[in-house]
Amino acid sequence: MSHIKNIIPTTVNPDLQKERSAATFDVEELAVWFQRSAEKLKTKREVERVVFANLEDGYGLNHEYMSHEDLYNSSVKKVAEAAPKLKALQKKLNPGGKDIWPGGLISEIGNGLFPANHPLATHTSMFVDVINGQGTPEQVAKWGPLAENCNIIGTYAQTELAHGTNVRGIETRADYDIRAGEFVLNTPNLEAYKWWPGGLGHTANHAMVVAQLYISGKHKGVQMFIVPLRHPETHLPLPGIDVGEIGKKLGMASVNQGFLGLKNVRIPRENMLMKFAKVDRDGKFTASPVSRVNYLTMVYTRCLIVELNTQLLLGAATIATRYSAVRRQSPIEPNGPEPQIIDHVTQRLKLFPEIATGIAYHQAAEYMWELYDQTVLDANNGKFERLPDMHVLSCALKVLCSTDGCAGIERLRLSTGGHGYHIAANLSNMYGNAVASYTYEGENTVLLLQIGRALVKTWNNFTQGKGVSSSYAYFEPSMSLKEFPKWDNSWQCIVKALQYTATHKTRIAFENLSERIAAGQSQGQAANNTGIELTRAAELHGRQFVCQTFVEQITGPKAQKRSKALNEVLENVLEMFLVQTVLNNLSDILRFINLTDEDLRSLQKRLEQSLEKFRPNAVAFCDGFDFHDRVLNSVLGSYDGNIYPRLFDAAKRSTMNQKHVQKSFETHLKPLMKSNL
Amino acid sequence: MSHIKNIIPTTVNPDLQKERSAATFDVEELAVWFQRSAEKLKTKREVERVVFANLEDGYGLNHEYMSHEDLYNSSVKKVAEAAPKLKALQKKLNPGGKDIWPGGLISEIGNGLFPANHPLATHTSMFVDVINGQGTPEQVAKWGPLAENCNIIGTYAQTELAHGTNVRGIETRADYDIRAGEFVLNTPNLEAYKWWPGGLGHTANHAMVVAQLYISGKHKGVQMFIVPLRHPETHLPLPGIDVGEIGKKLGMASVNQGFLGLKNVRIPRENMLMKFAKVDRDGKFTASPVSRVNYLTMVYTRCLIVELNTQLLLGAATIATRYSAVRRQSPIEPNGPEPQIIDHVTQRLKLFPEIATGIAYHQAAEYMWELYDQTVLDANNGKFERLPDMHVLSCALKVLCSTDGCAGIERLRLSTGGHGYHIAANLSNMYGNAVASYTYEGENTVLLLQIGRALVKTWNNFTQGKGVSSSYAYFEPSMSLKEFPKWDNSWQCIVKALQYTATHKTRIAFENLSERIAAGQSQGQAANNTGIELTRAAELHGRQFVCQTFVEQITGPKAQKRSKALNEVLENVLEMFLVQTVLNNLSDILRFINLTDEDLRSLQKRLEQSLEKFRPNAVAFCDGFDFHDRVLNSVLGSYDGNIYPRLFDAAKRSTMNQKHVQKSFETHLKPLMKSNL
Repeated sequence: MSHIKNIIPTTVNPDLQKERSAATFDVEELAVWFQRSAEKLKTKREVERVVFANLEDGYGLNHEYMSHEDLYNSSVKKVAEAAPKLKALQKKLNPGGKDIWPGGLISEIGNGLFPANHPLATHTSMFVDVINGQGTPEQVAKWGPLAENCNIIGTYAQTELAHGTNVRGIETRADYDIRAGEFVLNTPNLEAYKWWPGGLGHTANHAMVVAQLYISGKHKGVQMFIVPLRHPETHLPLPGIDVGEIGKKLGMASVNQGFLGLKNVRIPRENMLMKFAKVDRDGKFTASPVSRVNYLTMVYTRCLIVELNTQLLLGAATIATRYSAVRRQSPIEPNGPEPQIIDHVTQRLKLFPEIATGIAYHQAAEYMWELYDQTVLDANNGKFERLPDMHVLSCALKVLCSTDGCAGIERLRLSTGGHGYHIAANLSNMYGNAVASYTYEGENTVLLLQIGRALVKTWNNFTQGKGVSSSYAYFEPSMSLKEFPKWDNSWQCIVKALQYTATHKTRIAFENLSERIAAGQSQGQAANNTGIELTRAAELHGRQFVCQTFVEQITGPKAQKRSKALNEVLENVLEMFLVQTVLNNLSDILRFINLTDEDLRSLQKRLEQSLEKFRPNAVAFCDGFDFHDRVLNSVLGSYDGNIYPRLFDAAKRSTMNQKHVQKSFETHLKPLMKSNL
Repeated sequence: MSHIKNIIPTTVNPDLQKERSAATFDVEELAVWFQRSAEKLKTKREVERVVFANLEDGYGLNHEYMSHEDLYNSSVKKVAEAAPKLKALQKKLNPGGKDIWPGGLISEIGNGLFPANHPLATHTSMFVDVINGQGTPEQVAKWGPLAENCNIIGTYAQTELAHGTNVRGIETRADYDIRAGEFVLNTPNLEAYKWWPGGLGHTANHAMVVAQLYISGKHKGVQMFIVPLRHPETHLPLPGIDVGEIGKKLGMASVNQGFLGLKNVRIPRENMLMKFAKVDRDGKFTASPVSRVNYLTMVYTRCLIVELNTQLLLGAATIATRYSAVRRQSPIEPNGPEPQIIDHVTQRLKLFPEIATGIAYHQAAEYMWELYDQTVLDANNGKFERLPDMHVLSCALKVLCSTDGCAGIERLRLSTGGHGYHIAANLSNMYGNAVASYTYEGENTVLLLQIGRALVKTWNNFTQGKGVSSSYAYFEPSMSLKEFPKWDNSWQCIVKALQYTATHKTRIAFENLSERIAAGQSQGQAANNTGIELTRAAELHGRQFVCQTFVEQITGPKAQKRSKALNEVLENVLEMFLVQTVLNNLSDILRFINLTDEDLRSLQKRLEQSLEKFRPNAVAFCDGFDFHDRVLNSVLGSYDGNIYPRLFDAAKRSTMNQKHVQKSFETHLKPLMKSNL
């Protein structure tokens, strides 16, 4: 149907090839560093080689043209076909581990395998983990293997139609029937329908239902219950179960999120998870000892979110950078040739700071993983001191990384002009998948308010001369300064400036909060009225942490393990990030620190110079993330840079292009044209 | 299939009802003001009454579950059914006008009728307009009625796969064959394929092709040619025509954007539009006299973009505000009840400034329309002085309104938490439709650079004592100040501060540009290297204009036509906008203006107070935009506020929920579960 056939060249676009030749560092060294070890890089590549082999033609795009229902069914097929491959690779490459199976389902590789996501993620992560983490040994023995082997598929049903972040407000109810030794579960009203659990729609046949426990009419708090939903052979909903999917969303088209209503659904007593709280046969309730273990799970999940968002941001940056090295547009000299758009300074500003942001969060996540491992060790030895700090920092990282990462992906999409609007660029899909993290695992503003409250509480201790834990240690040196010293343009100076600003933002939030309380407002009212300042202080607390960590990771002892060439480009990235962070937060910084016009001009110049310096390394640096073409799944971002042939090829794959005339021509268009409207 | 049936109450949610009762102004007066006359409001309501009556059940949502192809066909049906209704209403309500037909196709009402957009927009706007504006009287007589009556459907084919904003770079070629008296059109390579024209895929049977004209091998510039694409009876592509759709995009699912390749396609000489440039039978070429008329069309189009983006932003704000008045979450007092989330101060900050932004652009657009009408009058009298200014201002408005509007829609979506992620909230769809305007009609950064270049050119004149036109008149008073006077917190002070800042940003951009030229860089290089500063100065030039216009429209003579109550709430909105604009641009302002800590605290307090003051009017204010439920098309934003029943109803409409078990259960899921993975 076209003049042009088999159009994708097997050669690399010469502009891209030229960029790669000009790089000042070894891409393979960067790839090892980015993957955190040569071993991990090797495993990743081997897994990719196997799972991405022999995929059907149009694997990454065809689903976009399907109906919602067909798309779901195609995703089930994809995940069912990938599961045994991943499991076999796990056994072969890292027996006993979980990084490939089930880890591969929620990972960079998973993004490539399941571009519309898939309905097993909640099962393999939350359902399995909650059983293993919150079940008694008997429960773990019974349910764990069934779930891990996918003999049963579960989901985690906590959020309700009208109840989200505030878990205490959920209304689903489990009454213990002492006579029968069973729990009776009910959804008291429409607002209490479970809503959002992944895979709940038409995939899971079990759910971990979070409900308010009642024994003899007395409330015993929120507990978790394993509830069978569907018949194991027919998959039909069991009696009393009203289950279905909630419908289409902005992204994650195949996660199959569902709703669940329960009407007098009975389950055995043994189906309540009882590692902590317990109900015995006679209805005696034993409360849970306050458990800090949950904190650790939350920290873990948030670190994972940071990793995933970082991958998506850097994936988008790779796509946009490669595109910008191939696309030519708008002469720089009035009648000159059209340059690669990466040579427009305004374009560099759209691309490179996003790369720097991705690396900053990559480094922050690395630090947090190290801290996490240490904290798990400590916890096993009964030491929990580090937990509250880690919790606050992981919240801050989750908020900042999802906010910056999603905004960055969208800026990168816009940087590719019209072509980024096409679904085959995959940038809108990446955004849709990433931006859900703004809301899940604690809505970002709610988390910022929590951090803000931790900050003012800590500030109160600090002003009373009580010790504060290490992540607030910057309060003291900041407050010991009468005023911020002369700007010396060093990285340390930038970090100190952010810490000084964060300190004073906390101080002001505390003062305003105190004033309001002194004026008669309740603690709650005063905190609400100080909300804007609390969230802003929280944000800066996070930003100083990210900057400080980034400086330490790049300039600290780890630098000795890297080549001079790699350190140089990483320092270039660090410089971009720090200068950009200062410029983006000037409105707060200038409130407390007196930067001269000279200082400000020099910051602007440093920004421009760091962009200029990064220019020859940009394409190669993105290569170092080692994103497989299947993972990027983008006609604009493939390694070969054949953007136009690939765009055209993608167009030809549209189902509509398989025929010349659509059926609505005879039924509606032609009648309209003949009607002499 | 559910415990709950026919669930949407016919009553209004009591929380919303309470909000409406508490408003301090007359909603109907606001509606008249917002629609710009009682007559327009009445017409709008009558059109809505007719076109939204008797739509099929699920009209606004069903298309989301269709395949790409079915969705297209359903949209053709929708537009073919709406066209005669709109045309009849035009005749009845405003004969001779164009506001209902074809205006209704691209309007607020169009958003409601065609939630996935439709493939006739480019036809009724650009194809028809270009014929009428660029054709000879004979051409207008021949083609105009055919196009206006939809006897032929056309599109406007300018952009190519590799050539966008820089029109001079397009490669499609039209060679005049003197012997035959015909043009021969060709697409020389893949990169020159036409790409993006709306309706080109499978709808249009004609295209206005923009191509490089050659006569006897000599280049005669870019011209426009009417090219038949498809057979009028069979709709099959004509010989030499390679046409199809480009595929799915982020938004505008049914615009049916297409590609077009031409191979020796011959058209009569009379098919080149010849109002300006001409080719006679013997191949003699007459160049166009430089036409300023194009400028006016561009200004008109950009004003229209501002209007459409404003509608989308305020539509999103209405949805999020109503939702926030019904949704309850997170106690303010530790063990208190869950409040309407609109009572969280951080939530107000997410909602109300977006409303203020929408009104600011609504007012700026109004001013621009008035200026436009005046300029058309002047142009008819041969006076063109105002055109360059208007061009720059309309560019700035387009850039700012699309940037702020799209970011605002997404912030509003995020403010509704998880439910905003659902397609039935319609917020993601609004974003997808709005954000295309970031790129079309001049990519935003390209436009900012144009504005920036106009600014430094004007600055050069200004410093040489030459007069500058009125939209740069603020340079002079700003530069006459030794330093900015003491902050007095008035609206005038805020406007002057923005003008002072814009002036100095322009000055610095000019200085840096000059320095670079002095250092030996070419004009082009220097402008590129000053790109970041040029765009930032351009942005501030736009912002001072929006603020100044807003103050004038609200506090000027027009205020006397409004009631005191309405003026009061409009002043509240103005206050929010100005304070927010200062706070958002503090990093630039503080560079030039020395605000004390006291000033900054008072600005923060003003923000909080203005949010507080607007709180009781928020719901009613949104009611005053008079958005029909069909236009909002949102389960979260309907007038009755029944958010949960509507969410549930939307879920039940998913095609997947029409059966309990999906076919992939037997084919893939059950085998996986039985496989003992």
